[in-house]
Amino acid sequence: MAKNLTKRDEDYSKWYNELVIKADLAENSAVRGCMVIKPYGYAIWERIQAELDRMFKETGHQNAYFPLFVPKSLFEAEEKNAEGFAKECAVVTHYRLQNDPDNKGKLRVDPNAKLEEELVVRPTSEAIIWNTFKGWIQSYRDLPLLINQWANVVRWEMRTRLFLRTAEFLWQEGHTAHATKKEAIAEAEQMLEVYADFAERYMAIPVVKGLKTESERFAGALETYCIEALMQDGKALQAGTSHFLGQNFAKAFDVKFAAKDGKLDHVWATSWGVSTRLMGALIMTHSDDNGLVLPPNLAPDQVVIVPIYRGEEQLEEISVVANELMKSLRAKGIRVKYDNRDTHKPGWKFNEYELKGVPVRIAIGPKDLEKGTVEIARRDTFEKQFISREDVVETVVGLMDEIQEKLFNKAKDYRTENTTEVASYDEFKEVLETKGGFILAHWDGTIETEDKIKNETKATIRCIPLDVKEGEGTCMVTGKPSKSLVLFAKAY
Amino acid sequence: MAKNLTKRDEDYSKWYNELVIKADLAENSAVRGCMVIKPYGYAIWERIQAELDRMFKETGHQNAYFPLFVPKSLFEAEEKNAEGFAKECAVVTHYRLQNDPDNKGKLRVDPNAKLEEELVVRPTSEAIIWNTFKGWIQSYRDLPLLINQWANVVRWEMRTRLFLRTAEFLWQEGHTAHATKKEAIAEAEQMLEVYADFAERYMAIPVVKGLKTESERFAGALETYCIEALMQDGKALQAGTSHFLGQNFAKAFDVKFAAKDGKLDHVWATSWGVSTRLMGALIMTHSDDNGLVLPPNLAPDQVVIVPIYRGEEQLEEISVVANELMKSLRAKGIRVKYDNRDTHKPGWKFNEYELKGVPVRIAIGPKDLEKGTVEIARRDTFEKQFISREDVVETVVGLMDEIQEKLFNKAKDYRTENTTEVASYDEFKEVLETKGGFILAHWDGTIETEDKIKNETKATIRCIPLDVKEGEGTCMVTGKPSKSLVLFAKAY
Repeated sequence: MAKNLTKRDEDYSKWYNELVIKADLAENSAVRGCMVIKPYGYAIWERIQAELDRMFKETGHQNAYFPLFVPKSLFEAEEKNAEGFAKECAVVTHYRLQNDPDNKGKLRVDPNAKLEEELVVRPTSEAIIWNTFKGWIQSYRDLPLLINQWANVVRWEMRTRLFLRTAEFLWQEGHTAHATKKEAIAEAEQMLEVYADFAERYMAIPVVKGLKTESERFAGALETYCIEALMQDGKALQAGTSHFLGQNFAKAFDVKFAAKDGKLDHVWATSWGVSTRLMGALIMTHSDDNGLVLPPNLAPDQVVIVPIYRGEEQLEEISVVANELMKSLRAKGIRVKYDNRDTHKPGWKFNEYELKGVPVRIAIGPKDLEKGTVEIARRDTFEKQFISREDVVETVVGLMDEIQEKLFNKAKDYRTENTTEVASYDEFKEVLETKGGFILAHWDGTIETEDKIKNETKATIRCIPLDVKEGEGTCMVTGKPSKSLVLFAKAY
Repeated sequence: MAKNLTKRDEDYSKWYNELVIKADLAENSAVRGCMVIKPYGYAIWERIQAELDRMFKETGHQNAYFPLFVPKSLFEAEEKNAEGFAKECAVVTHYRLQNDPDNKGKLRVDPNAKLEEELVVRPTSEAIIWNTFKGWIQSYRDLPLLINQWANVVRWEMRTRLFLRTAEFLWQEGHTAHATKKEAIAEAEQMLEVYADFAERYMAIPVVKGLKTESERFAGALETYCIEALMQDGKALQAGTSHFLGQNFAKAFDVKFAAKDGKLDHVWATSWGVSTRLMGALIMTHSDDNGLVLPPNLAPDQVVIVPIYRGEEQLEEISVVANELMKSLRAKGIRVKYDNRDTHKPGWKFNEYELKGVPVRIAIGPKDLEKGTVEIARRDTFEKQFISREDVVETVVGLMDEIQEKLFNKAKDYRTENTTEVASYDEFKEVLETKGGFILAHWDGTIETEDKIKNETKATIRCIPLDVKEGEGTCMVTGKPSKSLVLFAKAY
C-alpha cells in the first residue's frame, strides 16, 4: 500500500500536495496561481454544489448571474470593500489583440483597443450586484430579495496552494436585501446555520460557529459570521462566512425602498459564501497515509465493484452478479460503479480506489461465485468481511450511515482532544508550540493585543464562538477585562 | 391583455427586447455588452443545463474546470484559432489597483503591477485545455478522453443583444481526444445528435443538422457540424456547433499517445458547445404578443395555482384544496407553484404568468369550492375549462405532453411553410425579400460565390444539410455544377 505518498507525520504539507495530485483532484495550470480541477475533484465539487443549492432553494433563495467584470468606478463605490480587495485585482485594460509586427506568427495587445474605463475581474460581486439591485428594489413588496450566484472569482494571491488559496476559484455568493436590520441579521445567522449543517451532515466536518473580530471582518461588513474547522495538523481552516453588511452597500449604491407607510429608507444587506476551499477542508479532515477518505454523502462513487477473474468466461459470470448487485444498490439510491476494465489488474484497482477514497469496495472472484458471497472492504477502517450475496444491499446501505457517522465522530473527538483552554500567555505559547489546535483564551477586545499575539506567535483569533460558555475573565496578555473566551489557532 | 408589449408584426426586434425585460429573463448591466441573467431567466437556463448535463454524462463525458485566463503564448499556439478570436479578446494586463494620488477616494491601475505576460480572458478554451491534455495523455489507455466544462467566456462584441450576442456568456464546451480520426468524427457527430435531440425534445425547436462551409467553420476546425433553427421572423439562428478538429490542436500542443504497438501518434480532437444563446432561440420560437411561451419540459414552473378570494377565511379554505393539489401534482413529477401572495390581485397574477409563459394556470375561487371544480387555462392556446377536482392531476399530466408536442409541431409546420427551394438567383432574391425563411438552392462550392451572395443579399449559407435529398444540380449564381442543395437564410 505504498503509493509513494509522503506520510502525514513526516511532512503534512507535502502529503497534502501529493494527495491532491495523485487522487486526481486538481493540478496546477500554465496560469500562475490558477488550478485545473480534474474530473474526479470536480465530481466531488458537483456533489457539494448539488446539496448546497438544494439547501439555498429550500430557504427561499433564487439563483441569478451577474457580469464577470466590474467597471472601476463601480468597484470603488463602497470604499472599505474596494480598499480591502484593491491589492489583489486582475484588471482588463484592452479588448483586442493584433498581429505583432516585430514577431511573425505572434500576437500583441492592440494599443488602439484600450478601454476608456478599466474593468476589474470580480474578486467578489457586491459592487456589480448592488448596482443592479438598485433597479430591482422600489418598495417593501420587492423585499426580501434573496439571490445566490454560482461563479468564478479572481483574487491575485502571491502564494497559492491547490484548493486552499488559488488566484481563480469557484464559489457561491449569496446577496440579500431586507427591509429591517433585524431581518438582515436573521438572514446572516440562518445562512451560517445552513453552512454549519452542511459541513457537519455532508462533509462530516465539525465546525465552530462564531463571529470574526473587527480586523478579520469582510471588507465592508458590520459583522462577519464564520464556521471554523480544525485540520489534522492542528491548524484551523475558515470554511464559510456570512456577512451582515448593514446599509453600507445600499448607501454606496443608493438603494432605497418605500415602506408600507410610504417612507423611504435604505435597505439592509447580507452576503455569504463558500468556495472550492471546502475541498481542502474535506481532504485534510478525513484522509490518511493511504490517500483520500470521503464521507459517503459526498463521494461521487460510494461503492466500487471490482471483478477478480481469469479469462473472458469468468468475467462474464462475475458480471452477471455485479450487474444485478448494481441494480439493487442503485434502487436504494447508492452511487455504485463497476470497474470491469481489462487494462488494469485488480490490485492496481484496489490501490486506485483506496487512493481516491471510495467508501466501500466490493470484490467478486470465482470462489465467491461458488459460495454465493462477496468481499466487502471499508475505506475508513480497512475492515474486510465476506458476506452472503443476499445480505449485500442491506449491509452496504447500513455502512453508508455508519461510515458517515464514524468519520464525523472521529473528527469531533480529534477536535475535542485538540482544543485547549489556557489561563496565561505563557501557557498559550507553550500549547501552540507543542500541541497546536484550537486554543480558548481571554482577550481584552483590542486590535493592539490581537496584533501583538499574531506578530509574536502567528496565531490569530479564528472567532468569538457563538456558543462558548458565558463568563468574564481577564486578558491573558494585558490582564484587562474580557467578556468571553475567544478561539485562537494558526490557520490556513 | 395589453401588457404594453410591442406586437411582433409591428417590430419583431423591439418585441424581443421588451419581452426579455418584461418577463424578467435578463437585462443589460453597467458593463458594456454584458448581461445580468435574472432569476426567472436563470431558472430556465438551469433546466437546460440539467438536461444537457445528464445527456453528456449518459454518453460517457465527465465535467472538469480549467482556468478563466489563457497566457498569450498559449493562446497563439494554434494559429488559425488565435487569428479567429484575436480581435475580440479581453486582456488582463495588471494585477493590482492602488489609491489614485490625483483623485482622493478613487483607485487607479498600479503601474508597477504589470504582468510579464498578458492573460487573455478565454473566448473558448481549446488552448488552455490542450495544454493540460498534454499531461493527461500518454497511451491508448488514456483514450478516449471525454471532458466537458460549464463556464463563462468572453468575446468582445461591438453590437450586442440580450442572450443572442453578449460580450460575456455562459456555455458548456466539450473537449475530447481520440486514438483515431474515425472515432473523433463519430464523437462530433454523436454530440450533434445530442444537441438536435435536446433541441427537439426539450426546447420543442425543430432543427436542421448540417455542415458549415469552409468560411463559416470554427477557427481551427476541419469540419463544423451545426444545428440551425428558424425564428418566427424568418431569420435563422445557429443553436449549437460540434467541431472535428483533426490533429490541429494535438500538433500545436504536441499531444501524442503510444498505441498498443508502441507507435507514437498525435491524437484526434473534437470540441462542441451550446450557450445562453439557446435562451434567445427558445424565446423567438414559441412566444407570442402576450409574452413568453415555454415548453413544459423546460418551464421552471409548469403549473401555477392562483386563489381567487375575499378575506382570510376564504383564502384558507382555498389553500387546503390548493395544497392538496400541489402534493398530488408533485407526486407525479410536475413542477407546481402556489401563488398566495396577498400583495397582488388575481388579474395581476394572471397577466404575470401569461407574460412569463407558465404552461398551465389553475384558478380556484369560492364557486369552485362549492362545485368541486377548478379552472384550467393553457398558455399556448388560451383555452380554458372547468374540470372536476378529481380529474385535475390526470388532465394536467396529459396537458404537459400535449402542449410540448403541439409547440414542436407548430414550429415545425412554420418551418415547412417557410422553407423554399429555388431554381434561380432572381427567385432566391425575391423569396428572401418577400418571404424570408430557409431557402434551399444549388451552390457551386466556392467561397467567391458564397461571398457574392452574402454581399448582395445578406443571406449566408447556414449549412449543407446532412439529410437533404441527394441530387446534383447547377449553381443558381454561376451555373457551375453543384453537388447538393444547401440551406441559405439571413441569420442572427
